[in-house]
Amino acid sequence: MTAGIYAARQRLQTLLITKSFGGQIARKAVGIENYPGFEKISGLDLINTFEKQLRQHDVAFEEDSARKVEKSDQDFLVHTASKKTFKAKSVIIASGADPRPLEIPGEKEFIGRGVSYCVTCDAPLFANKKVAVVGGGNAGFEAALFLSKWAEKIYIFESGLKVKADEIVQTKAQETGKIEIFTSVSLQEILGDKFVKSITYRKGQTDQIESLSVDGLFVEIGSQPATSFLGDLVEFNQKDEIMFNPKTMQTKTPGLFVAGDVSEVIFKQIVVAAGEGAKAAMSVSNYLQDRKG
Amino acid sequence: MTAGIYAARQRLQTLLITKSFGGQIARKAVGIENYPGFEKISGLDLINTFEKQLRQHDVAFEEDSARKVEKSDQDFLVHTASKKTFKAKSVIIASGADPRPLEIPGEKEFIGRGVSYCVTCDAPLFANKKVAVVGGGNAGFEAALFLSKWAEKIYIFESGLKVKADEIVQTKAQETGKIEIFTSVSLQEILGDKFVKSITYRKGQTDQIESLSVDGLFVEIGSQPATSFLGDLVEFNQKDEIMFNPKTMQTKTPGLFVAGDVSEVIFKQIVVAAGEGAKAAMSVSNYLQDRKG
Repeated sequence: MTAGIYAARQRLQTLLITKSFGGQIARKAVGIENYPGFEKISGLDLINTFEKQLRQHDVAFEEDSARKVEKSDQDFLVHTASKKTFKAKSVIIASGADPRPLEIPGEKEFIGRGVSYCVTCDAPLFANKKVAVVGGGNAGFEAALFLSKWAEKIYIFESGLKVKADEIVQTKAQETGKIEIFTSVSLQEILGDKFVKSITYRKGQTDQIESLSVDGLFVEIGSQPATSFLGDLVEFNQKDEIMFNPKTMQTKTPGLFVAGDVSEVIFKQIVVAAGEGAKAAMSVSNYLQDRKG
Repeated sequence: MTAGIYAARQRLQTLLITKSFGGQIARKAVGIENYPGFEKISGLDLINTFEKQLRQHDVAFEEDSARKVEKSDQDFLVHTASKKTFKAKSVIIASGADPRPLEIPGEKEFIGRGVSYCVTCDAPLFANKKVAVVGGGNAGFEAALFLSKWAEKIYIFESGLKVKADEIVQTKAQETGKIEIFTSVSLQEILGDKFVKSITYRKGQTDQIESLSVDGLFVEIGSQPATSFLGDLVEFNQKDEIMFNPKTMQTKTPGLFVAGDVSEVIFKQIVVAAGEGAKAAMSVSNYLQDRKG
């Protein structure tokens, strides 16, 4: 959305293709407190504010999904789910990423009511509470370490025989005295009423289902950047995120730029994505000026 | 300010040293329309909003200016103008930059009323108007090119015998049919009432003062990043801006980070600076965690 605002302000003829605005943010029930300018605002309200501002500008909208982007001479062709094709001199990919879900009963129901995919956003809500973190990789351990500043107790759930986090991170987890690790467990269900109250899990190959009382659950089993429509126009890092030149936000294909959580940016934050959307749009303007020259 | 918010939210013990908040932005009289979340807001109002949000967090403030930063073993010592010294494990430099001023009569008086140092911010205000751009380098020509999307006529003022912009940029300027170039001129004074109305200048070595009617004036003679207190802890690019690792915002000195207009980031925009302030603070958190480990 920021790229759209900036592109329009550069007087570029701009088309924004999306099924809906805001992605993960619009689905966040819990108040956002770390976007500068708003002490506390719901994700949906913030996105509505962005949308109103975007619509003040000369931007065309297409309520659709990109299915394939291809290069055609110096231009790009964007094919959509509804079988339309748009031609563009330059394209910014800002298709975001979704955290990989657990896909167990109760998960969807309790999103924003104890189930979270963003520890940086939601950790402070769990002061003196008990939480589970699913995922025994670095992300899971780092989430647990971060949570240990607030939470009274953190359980890490790892489905494999051993956790996969670096030793140093494991040592730090141990030193907090607050983190307990469960290996060879598979989560079964998330239970509660208004808020999460407990989770059930199966241990190893047994049939026995056990229950654990927790106030929240953080899912840290990776994410899925939305990149399937890009083919080999871009390069990916090990997390399937799009690599780019951090000065210009350009991918390996000249004229193809990227911003936000679909990119390999380390910090998946609203204000970071907005800043990089602005950069990408201004780079498009420079790119088109150079191309014309 | 964003770095402060993020640092506090990482539960880092945070001290913010500044004489005042907002730098260039707080002095912008003209409404800001490109910070996502606000359709139109004055610079001062935006900064006040940021400040209110910042003060909700556990951040200490010191109304002072950094005079010298030095490394002391693994830590940093920050010496201030009032002869205080603060010790920190990590430092974020966000001291900003000021556009280099012309230092002629009328300049200060008409800031925000025709005199501007930011073409990206203010060009749309000059639709079908006449403007002068001071500076015949790439920055001046690019400002003029950008202005040519709105303004009816643009005069470029260059004090030297010849303009210094790249040929390609000069050709593009010629192609607009809107840009006129004055060389060997020195600007004398900016005149007007509520808004800029005209400028006076001297040609070559003559004593003759001429007058030109314009509605606005953009100053593009470089900027001065505020870095005098850093010594050789950081590396500078050709514009005296601080160089950094764009993934982490870290300078050449471990533990010393940078964000905003004082850095070599190409795009000097509020939302870009905010995004990079967030990155810097989160990197500090990672740095301290690694150091502890």
